[in-house]
Amino acid sequence: MTRFALTLEWDGTPFMGFQRQAHGPSVQQAVEEATQSVIGEEIVLHAAGRTDTGVHARGMRAHLELSRDFDPFRLGEAINARLKPHPIAVLDCVRVADDWHARFSCIGRAYEYRIINRRAPLTLEAGRAWRVTRPLDAEAMHEAAQVLVGHHDFTTFRSVHCQAASPLKTLDRLDVRRVGDEVLIAAAARSFLHHQVRSMVGCLALVGLGQWNRDDMAAALEAKNRCKLGLNAPPEGLYFISAQYPGEMSDGERQATGIDA
Amino acid sequence: MTRFALTLEWDGTPFMGFQRQAHGPSVQQAVEEATQSVIGEEIVLHAAGRTDTGVHARGMRAHLELSRDFDPFRLGEAINARLKPHPIAVLDCVRVADDWHARFSCIGRAYEYRIINRRAPLTLEAGRAWRVTRPLDAEAMHEAAQVLVGHHDFTTFRSVHCQAASPLKTLDRLDVRRVGDEVLIAAAARSFLHHQVRSMVGCLALVGLGQWNRDDMAAALEAKNRCKLGLNAPPEGLYFISAQYPGEMSDGERQATGIDA
Repeated sequence: MTRFALTLEWDGTPFMGFQRQAHGPSVQQAVEEATQSVIGEEIVLHAAGRTDTGVHARGMRAHLELSRDFDPFRLGEAINARLKPHPIAVLDCVRVADDWHARFSCIGRAYEYRIINRRAPLTLEAGRAWRVTRPLDAEAMHEAAQVLVGHHDFTTFRSVHCQAASPLKTLDRLDVRRVGDEVLIAAAARSFLHHQVRSMVGCLALVGLGQWNRDDMAAALEAKNRCKLGLNAPPEGLYFISAQYPGEMSDGERQATGIDA
Repeated sequence: MTRFALTLEWDGTPFMGFQRQAHGPSVQQAVEEATQSVIGEEIVLHAAGRTDTGVHARGMRAHLELSRDFDPFRLGEAINARLKPHPIAVLDCVRVADDWHARFSCIGRAYEYRIINRRAPLTLEAGRAWRVTRPLDAEAMHEAAQVLVGHHDFTTFRSVHCQAASPLKTLDRLDVRRVGDEVLIAAAARSFLHHQVRSMVGCLALVGLGQWNRDDMAAALEAKNRCKLGLNAPPEGLYFISAQYPGEMSDGERQATGIDA
């Protein structure tokens, strides 16, 4: 068997998330079917993370195994050709060791959340960002975000459908910055709970609007109670940016420079 | 009569350009109809520039006249509400003097052209950029672009359908820069000929690919002959960024900061 790692980008709008679903289209199904039509054998695609309906990816990592060897560049090109018209692209395809696992070997995950802070409806960015019409104080959001950084019980920021064994996670980074009328939130951790990023962003937006302050954020975290969540941000602003593996450069820099380890 | 200036953003994908057409949807028709449904009177929308089918706008300026006064903020909001589901938004609406004309008062126009330089098909940026699959040398493109800056006869870079009286134009700026896998081309001038930006970008891409050099660009310009055009870049990478009027801040900075004079 030969194992290949893929770097995937997709527009999440038409998909019910990464994972195969009985009741609608998924990224996993689209990539598996495209690969099968190239290779002629059934394969299973494993990804670094699941994503929700409508969530996008700029650098998801995934792997699959083939019973025979294949030139990785040609494999990636062939999968891309068969993926049409789905808005999914293989950005990179490389051979990896038999014990490299997109999910279990992953030691870091980075997300970005895009808010467009303006009155006017979105046109070019429709489905690509969350529009918040009232002014957001990005500095206050960044300050409150630091309450969440570190090792905590994130029960408040976890979907009731979350399947993780423990609500304890270590959040390495949660940075908020304004660029023109965009407010960008970058989150990095070894792993996240289900809905964790969107839940954190929703509460940060309340801080940005002046409805919550840093103490309210701390109280919500301390409560360890989903009912204390202020707001869950919508999926269309969320992007899975990158996954990190032992021996690789950290987070989004690899994707930003177009270099893949 | 009261005159209002609008700042418009749109996704050009579904439109046959700005100008009203007998045979398909246009931005002008959509905004005129939305405004008429608010105001109950026929209006005509004048814009700083026409755009082609598929070309986007981030900060087009336009004006219209109403027979009675109207609160500008409410007017902009009402037009936005009636514009749905068209991907057009009024970013700003202000009262202007009776002699302020979106087209004739305009003293500067700025465009940006987005190239995404990668093998993989576009997903999130499909219809938002030109994908060029072979590596582009952005520095060589920038150097060759400087040949075109200044006062020249741009006949080579002009559509055969161009209605301008003269092919003489002064190009103030043509900057090429790489940001990750994107190559961004910024063009500024008092006015442009029909297809001028796309024609210049197409030839710059030939330079970036190594098929043309700076001398070939100079020869194409000197030829003053449309047949010497190397390549016309596709419309989906082109964005009308901003228009400048007497007494206003220059070019794209106003839009980037969200401040409108």
